Amino acid sequence: MPVLLAPEQAPTLQTLLAEANVAGLDCIPVETKDKVQPRIRGLGSLLSAGPDEISFLSNPRMQAQLPQSGAAVVILTPTAFETLKAESYTFLPVLCSEPYLMYALLAQWFDRHRINSLPAGIHESAVIAPTAQIEPGVAIGPHCVIEDGVRIGRGTRLGPGCIIGANSILGADCLLHGRVTLYHHVVVGDRAILHSGCVLGADGFGFAPDPRQESGAWAKIAQIGGVVLGNDVEIGANTTVDRGAIDNTIIGNGVKLDNQIMIGHNCQIGDHTAMAACVGVAGSTIIGKRCSIGGAAMLSGHLNLADDVNVSGGTAITSSISHPGRYTGVYPYAEHIQWQRNAAVLPQLATLRRRIRALEKQES
Amino acid sequence: MPVLLAPEQAPTLQTLLAEANVAGLDCIPVETKDKVQPRIRGLGSLLSAGPDEISFLSNPRMQAQLPQSGAAVVILTPTAFETLKAESYTFLPVLCSEPYLMYALLAQWFDRHRINSLPAGIHESAVIAPTAQIEPGVAIGPHCVIEDGVRIGRGTRLGPGCIIGANSILGADCLLHGRVTLYHHVVVGDRAILHSGCVLGADGFGFAPDPRQESGAWAKIAQIGGVVLGNDVEIGANTTVDRGAIDNTIIGNGVKLDNQIMIGHNCQIGDHTAMAACVGVAGSTIIGKRCSIGGAAMLSGHLNLADDVNVSGGTAITSSISHPGRYTGVYPYAEHIQWQRNAAVLPQLATLRRRIRALEKQES
Amino acid sequence: MPVLLAPEQAPTLQTLLAEANVAGLDCIPVETKDKVQPRIRGLGSLLSAGPDEISFLSNPRMQAQLPQSGAAVVILTPTAFETLKAESYTFLPVLCSEPYLMYALLAQWFDRHRINSLPAGIHESAVIAPTAQIEPGVAIGPHCVIEDGVRIGRGTRLGPGCIIGANSILGADCLLHGRVTLYHHVVVGDRAILHSGCVLGADGFGFAPDPRQESGAWAKIAQIGGVVLGNDVEIGANTTVDRGAIDNTIIGNGVKLDNQIMIGHNCQIGDHTAMAACVGVAGSTIIGKRCSIGGAAMLSGHLNLADDVNVSGGTAITSSISHPGRYTGVYPYAEHIQWQRNAAVLPQLATLRRRIRALEKQES
Repeated sequence: MPVLLAPEQAPTLQTLLAEANVAGLDCIPVETKDKVQPRIRGLGSLLSAGPDEISFLSNPRMQAQLPQSGAAVVILTPTAFETLKAESYTFLPVLCSEPYLMYALLAQWFDRHRINSLPAGIHESAVIAPTAQIEPGVAIGPHCVIEDGVRIGRGTRLGPGCIIGANSILGADCLLHGRVTLYHHVVVGDRAILHSGCVLGADGFGFAPDPRQESGAWAKIAQIGGVVLGNDVEIGANTTVDRGAIDNTIIGNGVKLDNQIMIGHNCQIGDHTAMAACVGVAGSTIIGKRCSIGGAAMLSGHLNLADDVNVSGGTAITSSISHPGRYTGVYPYAEHIQWQRNAAVLPQLATLRRRIRALEKQES
Repeated sequence: MPVLLAPEQAPTLQTLLAEANVAGLDCIPVETKDKVQPRIRGLGSLLSAGPDEISFLSNPRMQAQLPQSGAAVVILTPTAFETLKAESYTFLPVLCSEPYLMYALLAQWFDRHRINSLPAGIHESAVIAPTAQIEPGVAIGPHCVIEDGVRIGRGTRLGPGCIIGANSILGADCLLHGRVTLYHHVVVGDRAILHSGCVLGADGFGFAPDPRQESGAWAKIAQIGGVVLGNDVEIGANTTVDRGAIDNTIIGNGVKLDNQIMIGHNCQIGDHTAMAACVGVAGSTIIGKRCSIGGAAMLSGHLNLADDVNVSGGTAITSSISHPGRYTGVYPYAEHIQWQRNAAVLPQLATLRRRIRALEKQES
Repeated sequence: MPVLLAPEQAPTLQTLLAEANVAGLDCIPVETKDKVQPRIRGLGSLLSAGPDEISFLSNPRMQAQLPQSGAAVVILTPTAFETLKAESYTFLPVLCSEPYLMYALLAQWFDRHRINSLPAGIHESAVIAPTAQIEPGVAIGPHCVIEDGVRIGRGTRLGPGCIIGANSILGADCLLHGRVTLYHHVVVGDRAILHSGCVLGADGFGFAPDPRQESGAWAKIAQIGGVVLGNDVEIGANTTVDRGAIDNTIIGNGVKLDNQIMIGHNCQIGDHTAMAACVGVAGSTIIGKRCSIGGAAMLSGHLNLADDVNVSGGTAITSSISHPGRYTGVYPYAEHIQWQRNAAVLPQLATLRRRIRALEKQES
């Protein structure tokens, strides 16, 4: 459950909206004149928010919960407010054309104002190479290791135990949670969020058969490319992005990768593409902008996916996709015995088609 | 191979049974009067155990191996012992109604009595916030980081390099192997076993489209919920459990998660549910008690699974399941050419059904 | 992009070939008498390599790019050189019967000669048990932890934050990148490359039902086996190899595992088998030599795979395979609506087969 701010630290609604809001989002509190400006100690869902919390309604299917909300304030669309009007309610409504986005911004505000677990400054146990260039306002947690030639931009914060390999570059205002590893020669843009256990720049998987050794033996293809991340990228916990074989692996601006994703060497991922957890992308595949890849989907190597492609969770993409749209390939589950009965017919599909053709010929 | 205890450290059978056994498990050594009480230096399988080791028979299909066992002692059911009697054997039989459970308890005993790699006490290189509350008997390994407001219960042991984020709570008698990360505000019950590289409390994957930015850009939804684990939970290596968006992600008592599992934000997993490796559970899915989820299965978000549901490995569950039972959805593999031939018919299934209908109409 | 060496550090072609080449690979520079021996500052692909870089042609489909290459030197087969001859080109050709292998060896040379991010010697922040045996020439990075009874062979290098559990053994000339975890009693052969976040020796997933506790509760089966890796093994980032229940988990010589692979307890993997990322192998499965397992494939437990088996990516192997060959089982993806239409027929396959049979009977 979200932690409530102490009453003396809680902002008024006015302050909260002023500080969370940014240009272009209009949020209009209704009926403020009759009410004392409430202090907002936290943010909750419609039914869980208490009398000193703010909540929101973005999904119209939740409209029925609205009158019962015990929140101090609820953000909602003018339409939802119209629907509500006949009913009694106790919260202060705030009208906003984008309540879901407003919720995102409010949650960011509360997240920023909790106890900040990242230390300011550079912890004495961090090991920092003399040739590293650390800009002002950088925070480096305990037991971090910053190797030769690293550059870290203004305002970037590193949790405990991060390793930044030689000659890697972190932009400004990045947040690295604990235990992030960057190998050497990895470039990260501004405002990245990298989660614990993610590894950027490990070797891509490349081997050449070596006939001079015993049958089947491999010679390693050293991976001498790098990894380049654009700005505003988020990388989930235990996700891995491999370095390129010769050229770089490239992650575009605004790309969001969930946990335990694997991006093979020399992939290129277009701006604002989002991938849910456990996706695997084999080497050299190029994915367009604004794609969404569902959880546990798998993409073969050396493919091209157009912009705005949506891959369903659990789907194996084995060939290039040149048109936007939604693509799926998931075996429908069933009770085990039913599945067994029907799956047994799969190896006969080509035969069945032939038998149907034969029947059709006899008919005609 | 399990390491044998030095002879002088090895327990007698009597001591071993007394210390490993717990109320309710009856284990009766047979014919002890004729034999010297053997000292037991280790535990092995029927065929690998030597003359100073204990073994067990739980799977009736292994009965044929029983007479050849060179073990000093074998735990077996009275039924297996009856079957054995006609044959000659050299071990000392111990009758037990639950030999597999007895094996589990004996293995625990030997595991406890090996060289304990976790240091007692708090290593001088650990960085511990002054506001952290550490109960007596806690062991904290080298290079751990314990942040503000953390509480760690009596007898809990942390391997090297663990990070416990601000205000998180660890119960009593937990075992954290090296390099475990807890983010802030994560609650772990008593007797948890957390394996290396697991991450509890990273941000759930939540973004709101932000029309104020360039097309396709996302605003982060800060994840202000937490993670709460019950008692007796085991979490595998490199498994990730994300924190809730607003409310908590909840892992019930006795839940066992294998390696490289991903639990999305706001999931709830019922007591004693077990998941094999590489499972992915998308956000807000609720799983009942005593479920078993096979390896690499994938569950979509916002589903409800009843108690006692068994999902086969590799199955994608895309809708809620309201009845106990076994559910499967796996494409049967075949030699590549055969697969290719039959898979090519899949995109014509609806057409084939229509053609069958047409033929049936002509017939009638 | 690969970093170029400073001109004064760049080798001549002669030096490079002499140092990278090893017995049995013939590489013959053509027409060297007319040309100044170029200095080679880096290695690039045919189209990206500049006038002080070396490149190669191994895939005949790239032949058309060859004349345009701006590289100083190109490694190619005599056949490719014959094909080229009619065209004009600016690079120095080097004939080699195995250009792909030669590329692998050249890339290794450049990788060795970049700034070496791993420190020589033992960093003062490393915590090393007095009973550990460290051979000469071992490098141990900051914040490593080497526990009791560990042995580390000559020339092995450990990046920052590695943990080597009690009584584990690392062979000679291994390279452990940062944040590798070995639990206790793990044995690694010579020349291993272990990537960041991999975990060797975590507990296998084993539990016995415990009827003495509440319904569904599990007793842990302590995992008292170990893990043994042969020589020349590479393990990818965040891959996990569990320790055996009683006997060892065994990884053969020359095995190559990509990132985020999971190897269950008591598996045995034959020499030179290679697995792409995200593969899961359940416990006690035995895989032959020289197998290749495609990305995100899944193997059930207790199976046997013959030597030289090739499993396609995304395939679930649920039974043993006794013959070499390629095996596949992937649901073909399609546009979502088409998939939906055809997938809806899958639960009727057995019925459809019956209806076809009925029609056939009526016909005859």
